[in-house]
Amino acid sequence: MSTAKAIAKGLEGVIIDDSSICMIDGNAGRLIYRGYDIHDLTVNLTFEEAAYLLWNGELPTKTQLDDLNKRLSMERPIPANLKVTIRNLPRNSNTLDVLRTAISTLGTGLPLKKPDISDAIAITAKMPTINAAFDRLRRGQEPVEPLPGLGHAANYIYMLTGKEPEPAKVDALNKYLILLADHGMNSSTFTARIVASTWSDMYSAITAAIGALKGPLHGGAPAPALQMLKDIKSPERAEAWIRNELKAGRRLMGFGHRVYRTTDPRAEILRDIASQTADKKFFELARSVEETALRLLQTERSRKRLYTNVEFYSAVVMDSVGLPPDLFTASFAASRSVGWAANVLEQVANNRLIRPVTDYTGPWDRKVVPIDKR
Amino acid sequence: MSTAKAIAKGLEGVIIDDSSICMIDGNAGRLIYRGYDIHDLTVNLTFEEAAYLLWNGELPTKTQLDDLNKRLSMERPIPANLKVTIRNLPRNSNTLDVLRTAISTLGTGLPLKKPDISDAIAITAKMPTINAAFDRLRRGQEPVEPLPGLGHAANYIYMLTGKEPEPAKVDALNKYLILLADHGMNSSTFTARIVASTWSDMYSAITAAIGALKGPLHGGAPAPALQMLKDIKSPERAEAWIRNELKAGRRLMGFGHRVYRTTDPRAEILRDIASQTADKKFFELARSVEETALRLLQTERSRKRLYTNVEFYSAVVMDSVGLPPDLFTASFAASRSVGWAANVLEQVANNRLIRPVTDYTGPWDRKVVPIDKR
Repeated sequence: MSTAKAIAKGLEGVIIDDSSICMIDGNAGRLIYRGYDIHDLTVNLTFEEAAYLLWNGELPTKTQLDDLNKRLSMERPIPANLKVTIRNLPRNSNTLDVLRTAISTLGTGLPLKKPDISDAIAITAKMPTINAAFDRLRRGQEPVEPLPGLGHAANYIYMLTGKEPEPAKVDALNKYLILLADHGMNSSTFTARIVASTWSDMYSAITAAIGALKGPLHGGAPAPALQMLKDIKSPERAEAWIRNELKAGRRLMGFGHRVYRTTDPRAEILRDIASQTADKKFFELARSVEETALRLLQTERSRKRLYTNVEFYSAVVMDSVGLPPDLFTASFAASRSVGWAANVLEQVANNRLIRPVTDYTGPWDRKVVPIDKR
Repeated sequence: MSTAKAIAKGLEGVIIDDSSICMIDGNAGRLIYRGYDIHDLTVNLTFEEAAYLLWNGELPTKTQLDDLNKRLSMERPIPANLKVTIRNLPRNSNTLDVLRTAISTLGTGLPLKKPDISDAIAITAKMPTINAAFDRLRRGQEPVEPLPGLGHAANYIYMLTGKEPEPAKVDALNKYLILLADHGMNSSTFTARIVASTWSDMYSAITAAIGALKGPLHGGAPAPALQMLKDIKSPERAEAWIRNELKAGRRLMGFGHRVYRTTDPRAEILRDIASQTADKKFFELARSVEETALRLLQTERSRKRLYTNVEFYSAVVMDSVGLPPDLFTASFAASRSVGWAANVLEQVANNRLIRPVTDYTGPWDRKVVPIDKR
């Protein structure tokens, strides 16, 4: 109503709550889950342990981890009605649309209840199953049922390919899944918390979050980052290609982040993983494109230094473990599901309905005139 | 990180953007869409005209309205694969879960694009079709196809019952649908805007919003409000029944709202509608319960005066037009769909990614110890 009011458009820097889940120090380039540095976590944990940590606040004992693994294993298969639904979706569907619809379908038939860890386990367990089932169906293959003896990352590759994967690939995917599992109050996590703040259920919250992750400004950039590398083809073509993109005013995928003012620690770790799992020549191409892009973004756009973000090497790592590019963001969701659930649990443990306001700038005192006089 | 930082928990009173769609004056008890008072709109418009106004900012001419009606009519039927999906959902599903899954399903197979009015029309057109199809299927009846000659409100009742409805019921439902079509930056609308702010699509945004509306703190209260009236049964039982609820510390459904400090204008209009369409005795019961509840909330809870909110008479009106109680919130969604879409369009017209932060209050400097030492 007045122009003097402070408008927090985009809510940049606005603290919406306290949280003990995840800490991002954008200036120091540090990422912490529940007090543990992300470097420590990716070296020493499985994805399942990281999920336990994010949901419970503590690392699991051997017994607790065995129990979680058993529950994940039991929850991995998807019900028959969901298989029918996935089979009936258009084969050219965006994989995020498929995942969103599948998680929403899983939420039907359940009584409304306060979100709890059993929901977190059920949803997280099924995301790779859904992604893999749709991927196989669209390629004219039957879905592969999860294998009880395999862990989460291994099962994902197994259900996609029907073959038990190489340990190096499992390890790389495992680290990827840990790295992306949470990241503060990003748009999809915030979406999940708002939905939970109305006392809605976990399935509604995570369905909503998937829709937010789909957007190219949030989770949608790893596939274009890979495409950029494929288009550039060889290191000596990088400079001309990137100059051309910048001249055309297009955005380079994989650089810059709202909260990091220095290197994204996840990018560093993913670069290390990529150096081990990716094709040597392709990794060198990625390195060269990264260096050229960072240099040209600074000199040609003459603005503050940008840094490589998580998407750039995510793309290289996911490609190296055999994920098709259009499953990159759906695989990101399969990881972030853990953080969404952790945040929903934190929200409902100390809830307040999230409901801001807008400042009305439209017309006033209009009167409806009959339609034949308009 | 520090306790001195201002935390905007719940974002109450935080202005997240300017908007020219909807103005709520909580102190004066006024609600305005695009400059028109809600009283004026409900008396003089059809739901379709109100939708046009909210989406375009101006009332339609006759030609524009004819065009919108034609497009809504074309978009009303649902595709075959969605019918299969709805048929496969558990019959005891919450209707919001069904609607969320159906809108998500409709979003599959489409290319990612910037949300536009054609999305708004397609989604709004189909919500009553989805609600009615599921309602008939769970009762063992075949869905009824929409009738091209009927308007939006009339078609909704027609698809539920298979009979052309009485004009008075159509008029009441029409007014209800106008009244609930938008309401500022409520939780579901905010959810839709965040999803849109990532450059995701309209289907993702509205799927997310449905999940938020499901929560009892937001859209989930009209059915319990009706149940309360049915439990009380007669005016002379109201006082004892309500005193008992208050003594037990339970929340009375249908009273109080975060943004209104006086009567919710929608409650007044809905009371008028109810006085015309509801059974005379039932309306008198509602009046008596309302008066008793307002009096006892003030005297027994000894706090600031509470007012009747939109849910109380929404329940009476929806019951009077023949909607089953567990379709009340799904019908609210069929109306609010218009406001969600209007807000998504406004968001993407001048977008900024919505991404706040949290204040980390968890532990620091922990080191992973091997699992056998935990």
